Amino acid sequence: MTHSSARRRDVTVADVAKAALVSKAQAARALGGYGAVSEDVRERVLAAAESLSYRPNELARTMNTGKSHTIGVVVGDIENPHFGLAMRGISDRAKASGFDVILINTGEDIRAETDAVRVLLDKRVDGLIVAPVSSPEKGHLERVCASGRPLVLFDRKVDGLDVDVVATDMTEVSRKSTAELIHAGHERIAFISTLKSQEPFWNGMDVSSTPIAERLKGMSLAFHDAGHSFPSDLVRLNAGNSDSVVGITQDLLRGPAPATAIVASDGLVALGVVEGIQTMGLSIPQDVSFLMYDDLAWTRLTNPPLSVISQPVYDMGAAAAAALIQRIQRPGVKSEIPEFTATLINRGSIGAVRGAASCYSLSESP
Amino acid sequence: MTHSSARRRDVTVADVAKAALVSKAQAARALGGYGAVSEDVRERVLAAAESLSYRPNELARTMNTGKSHTIGVVVGDIENPHFGLAMRGISDRAKASGFDVILINTGEDIRAETDAVRVLLDKRVDGLIVAPVSSPEKGHLERVCASGRPLVLFDRKVDGLDVDVVATDMTEVSRKSTAELIHAGHERIAFISTLKSQEPFWNGMDVSSTPIAERLKGMSLAFHDAGHSFPSDLVRLNAGNSDSVVGITQDLLRGPAPATAIVASDGLVALGVVEGIQTMGLSIPQDVSFLMYDDLAWTRLTNPPLSVISQPVYDMGAAAAAALIQRIQRPGVKSEIPEFTATLINRGSIGAVRGAASCYSLSESP
Repeated sequence: MTHSSARRRDVTVADVAKAALVSKAQAARALGGYGAVSEDVRERVLAAAESLSYRPNELARTMNTGKSHTIGVVVGDIENPHFGLAMRGISDRAKASGFDVILINTGEDIRAETDAVRVLLDKRVDGLIVAPVSSPEKGHLERVCASGRPLVLFDRKVDGLDVDVVATDMTEVSRKSTAELIHAGHERIAFISTLKSQEPFWNGMDVSSTPIAERLKGMSLAFHDAGHSFPSDLVRLNAGNSDSVVGITQDLLRGPAPATAIVASDGLVALGVVEGIQTMGLSIPQDVSFLMYDDLAWTRLTNPPLSVISQPVYDMGAAAAAALIQRIQRPGVKSEIPEFTATLINRGSIGAVRGAASCYSLSESP
Repeated sequence: MTHSSARRRDVTVADVAKAALVSKAQAARALGGYGAVSEDVRERVLAAAESLSYRPNELARTMNTGKSHTIGVVVGDIENPHFGLAMRGISDRAKASGFDVILINTGEDIRAETDAVRVLLDKRVDGLIVAPVSSPEKGHLERVCASGRPLVLFDRKVDGLDVDVVATDMTEVSRKSTAELIHAGHERIAFISTLKSQEPFWNGMDVSSTPIAERLKGMSLAFHDAGHSFPSDLVRLNAGNSDSVVGITQDLLRGPAPATAIVASDGLVALGVVEGIQTMGLSIPQDVSFLMYDDLAWTRLTNPPLSVISQPVYDMGAAAAAALIQRIQRPGVKSEIPEFTATLINRGSIGAVRGAASCYSLSESP
């Protein structure tokens, strides 16, 4: 079969109408089962439809029934395995309920996200999951609500938007993990995130992304618990791509008061941090301790294997789909969303701080 | 805003018709700009549409114009970073031409793939990329062609289907890489792939997936060049999940004629192979050499960093989108698809075979 010979098109209502010798409006009414149409016309139209193998299309069906049995998912970064795994959870759960899942990737760009929401609403999805929202802006999300279609947020909530949220509270696990680092002698603990921010981080800054805010809050609480001040100068946002993460890492490990431990806020940041540490010829954990969010398969293959904070991402994806489908099938009934907790898996990248006292006492006051 | 207060729905043609005191058919004709409608009716309908903030929806627009400016992508495995990167290439190129991209993940299951094609056709995408096809079955792909919408295959071609294919021929790079392994003294070279197969591999077997067939052909040619017979007993298909890859790896490295080198057919298989080697307490490359397809970021972080075969995946994604968009915009004009080549990046996981002679001469005859 060649492209040119294949240029048959779908049989349309107009084709059926022509074959049945009726008007398009009559054919549409007969095929759609609405409006007044004589018995004779109905029979001729249905016979023509059968002989032409007319297949009522999804668009028309959606317009009639208002349901497409499709869920739309807006994915922030499809290259991040965190969301790949969440997607599998969403898809498996959706499929079990007879829903198809279509997704759009946004690269965590708010304009792309706004476009994605519009496209998915236009494609008449029955509900939307946004995983995660890329900014505190919410106009596009309010339009989802206004359209009457349910919305579930994954990973991040948005202030002032009363919709279902599936997320793991990171405050406690961050507090506990930071306490372990402090216990090992670390006070110069750095944190690197891709979160976009107009200004450098400062203590008390309003961090718009809930999962990042929780990670930082947990760190801050642990420092407070230990009676130390939180080294906010070591918090680096806007870590865009891998090269920028490598540069930030090298910067944090140089100078008079370098970081002795680095926490990577996700698996993509982690790749750049470990690369940055290695290119400086430093060893984990002898020279610098390392902790990262997301338990990815490759973290077990480095030497030493890396300590990670693990979230039940697959289950969270499945829960997001379950909540959305319940909202679609039983509007007005509140979804039960399970609570999820993250755990520290300490594999071997956290060690005692080396030659600390003299050097790090210099840097305690901000 | 709460879910319950938000259950407004979109303004429909029926709402406009009611406000304009005309029939739905009249309103639809006036709004759609087709068919006969009096000037008076048209004015009343347009005024009502404006006062109700009626927005002609994408579905209706698609039905009128036949174009949705949307590309559909069927992704085999969204968790494989190979396809994550290809997706970015596709999205960037599509966006530059004003096309949205919606995708469906199939888990490389032929039934899910068939469903995905149906859903995307039903959503009225203007064309489809399948990345990659999961089996030699082609009924669902022929339906795409029959619908008159262009189709581009990514990574794998399908015999007897004359559509654009964007792929890298792997034969030469596989031949060259295998030659390097043979030059280092290896004859027991294993190959592990997730490709589903009803029967174990045998020499001369018809391998349905072109990229896997090419990898194997290249290996076989290199053995032939060197005057050795190809150890087909070390080719393992059906490597499903990570656990199964670990098991296959351990099996290959045991017994009287173990493999001395393992080639992983993609980045996900590679994770299991390296884990399997490590759990046996073996070292790369001292005990076993290792080579994998896909240059993923984590392969630079292991000790030693891993030797990989790198494909220009982003560029291939962009080329697939470009070819599809050209077919959409200029039907009947053949797309120019650039040729892509893969390269061996030898980082440090290929070493000389250890204590070879006496042991491997035993295993040369199949």
